[in-house]
Amino acid sequence: PDAAAVAAVAARDAELTKPPGSLGRLEEIAAWLAAWQGRPRPAVTRPLVAIFAGNHGVAARGVSAFPVAVTRQMVENFAAGGAAINQICIAYDLGLKVFDLALDHPTGDITIEPALDEAGCAATIAFGMEATAGGIDLLALGEMGIGNTTVAAAVAAGLFGGTGADWVGPGTGVDAEGLARKAAAVDAALARHAGHLGDPLEVLRRLGGRELAAIAGAILAARMSRIPVVLDGYVVTAAAAVLFKAEPTALDHCLFGHLSAEPAHAKLLAAMGKRPLLDLGMRLGEGTGAALAAGLVKAAAQVHSGMATFAQAGVATKG
Amino acid sequence: PDAAAVAAVAARDAELTKPPGSLGRLEEIAAWLAAWQGRPRPAVTRPLVAIFAGNHGVAARGVSAFPVAVTRQMVENFAAGGAAINQICIAYDLGLKVFDLALDHPTGDITIEPALDEAGCAATIAFGMEATAGGIDLLALGEMGIGNTTVAAAVAAGLFGGTGADWVGPGTGVDAEGLARKAAAVDAALARHAGHLGDPLEVLRRLGGRELAAIAGAILAARMSRIPVVLDGYVVTAAAAVLFKAEPTALDHCLFGHLSAEPAHAKLLAAMGKRPLLDLGMRLGEGTGAALAAGLVKAAAQVHSGMATFAQAGVATKG
Repeated sequence: PDAAAVAAVAARDAELTKPPGSLGRLEEIAAWLAAWQGRPRPAVTRPLVAIFAGNHGVAARGVSAFPVAVTRQMVENFAAGGAAINQICIAYDLGLKVFDLALDHPTGDITIEPALDEAGCAATIAFGMEATAGGIDLLALGEMGIGNTTVAAAVAAGLFGGTGADWVGPGTGVDAEGLARKAAAVDAALARHAGHLGDPLEVLRRLGGRELAAIAGAILAARMSRIPVVLDGYVVTAAAAVLFKAEPTALDHCLFGHLSAEPAHAKLLAAMGKRPLLDLGMRLGEGTGAALAAGLVKAAAQVHSGMATFAQAGVATKG
Repeated sequence: PDAAAVAAVAARDAELTKPPGSLGRLEEIAAWLAAWQGRPRPAVTRPLVAIFAGNHGVAARGVSAFPVAVTRQMVENFAAGGAAINQICIAYDLGLKVFDLALDHPTGDITIEPALDEAGCAATIAFGMEATAGGIDLLALGEMGIGNTTVAAAVAAGLFGGTGADWVGPGTGVDAEGLARKAAAVDAALARHAGHLGDPLEVLRRLGGRELAAIAGAILAARMSRIPVVLDGYVVTAAAAVLFKAEPTALDHCLFGHLSAEPAHAKLLAAMGKRPLLDLGMRLGEGTGAALAAGLVKAAAQVHSGMATFAQAGVATKG
């Protein structure tokens, strides 16, 4: 973080025509933007939502309410402008890029083998780093992948302990039997990969998936490129948690956009001591929660940069 | 509410390319818009933020951290585009109108007399109704008035019982002595007007202020004109509570935009069983919380109206 930029924001904030502290988290966001953009006047003029899509071998275990074909169908829906995320990007003037990750070649079934081999995991992390190209100044991350809340649960359990039942949830809407299959799949995966879970990157490679690996790469690249990041719900947070587990400050440039209705998301955030911005009962993915939060981040930047000072406006100060 | 419009939204929502219920409160907002706009496809194309500004006799009791002159200075700041609310309106493309209400003639000091006489109160309610003119389809309400969190506390106590200490808070940032003066002023006002507080409109007239009366008028007019309303923080909620106390369904066309950091706001919302949309630690007023929420309402309308159906997008349904 850029301490001088943070100090500049604090000094200007104290002069703006409002009581000190009265804009709450908007003020925190302005300081956070400045800290990670490394400039005294934060701005969001080229925000991007990046969605990574992947398919999962574990989906064959009956862990999702939707068929695997839906991953590609939704990628096509994103391209055609018909998904929820497209509408939020219209509403808040956010760019959108969709990265599909070898959808015809699902990852290995984590209950019996690693999701990815070492070369494939490294290549996918590197691919995810491409999301930061193009001169963007805010990156919101989303995902699409039938079966990926099961994978996220496995990663969360691999990183923070506990069983499948602790970390699975209804996802897109499985019934009680489906939920039991999800928990059993996670437990089987944890047993299969026991002894290899001490290294967070091994958790990602063995229990994760391509979109999770790419998201981890995008978060890393954004840090290096001074691009603040807004994270979405459970799956994106699980990918981010890999980096947190390796280094607890690794997500300091990330804002947790919303609290998902997927029950274990709150638990995962609590395990990292993170506080989400919005709580709207959403559980869609696609970056929808992150994009709504990005709309607030845009407003926070505009407020800080556009407001008049007490002196400029001729407004009397406190006391 | 328009039951046919709500049914149309529910039927379309079930066809959209997402798991049922996965957009949480965005889905609720789309249905709420349709219910009160009275049309099957909700839209927010002409949203307006209306700010009402007033001055208060009770301000002479030392209840605010800022001098009374700041009310007019901030109205001028709104006109010049330098306030926080101006920036949020830019960020979300919201219209903005500011209504100043006889700023040179503060209301009566509620500790010794009614804030308004009967004719003045009625005229101010009628004036507030003008906020709905111009073909708007969403109305966000805000206020400005040095001393008006004291007045809001008096109204809340008058409507729901309790003492000054139960309903006052730091407002723009008074110290402990200022807080004690606020509580004492509310207690004095409650004692002075005891026996006249059974009628909510008398509470408004005796303990309220011009901006509160105008806001009550705007809420009433919006209901008649089929314009959904987004409410701001403690002061706006106190004005709205007058209508709620008279008729518990009177605010069903209103969305509570945010939870203010002013401590008694949560208590006032709880007294009415209302749940705010955002919780960002804000306590500025000016409609800033309502305007941020209006940005979410715009997104919710765009999502519902703009998304493709499963059939249109060729996406497989659940199961």
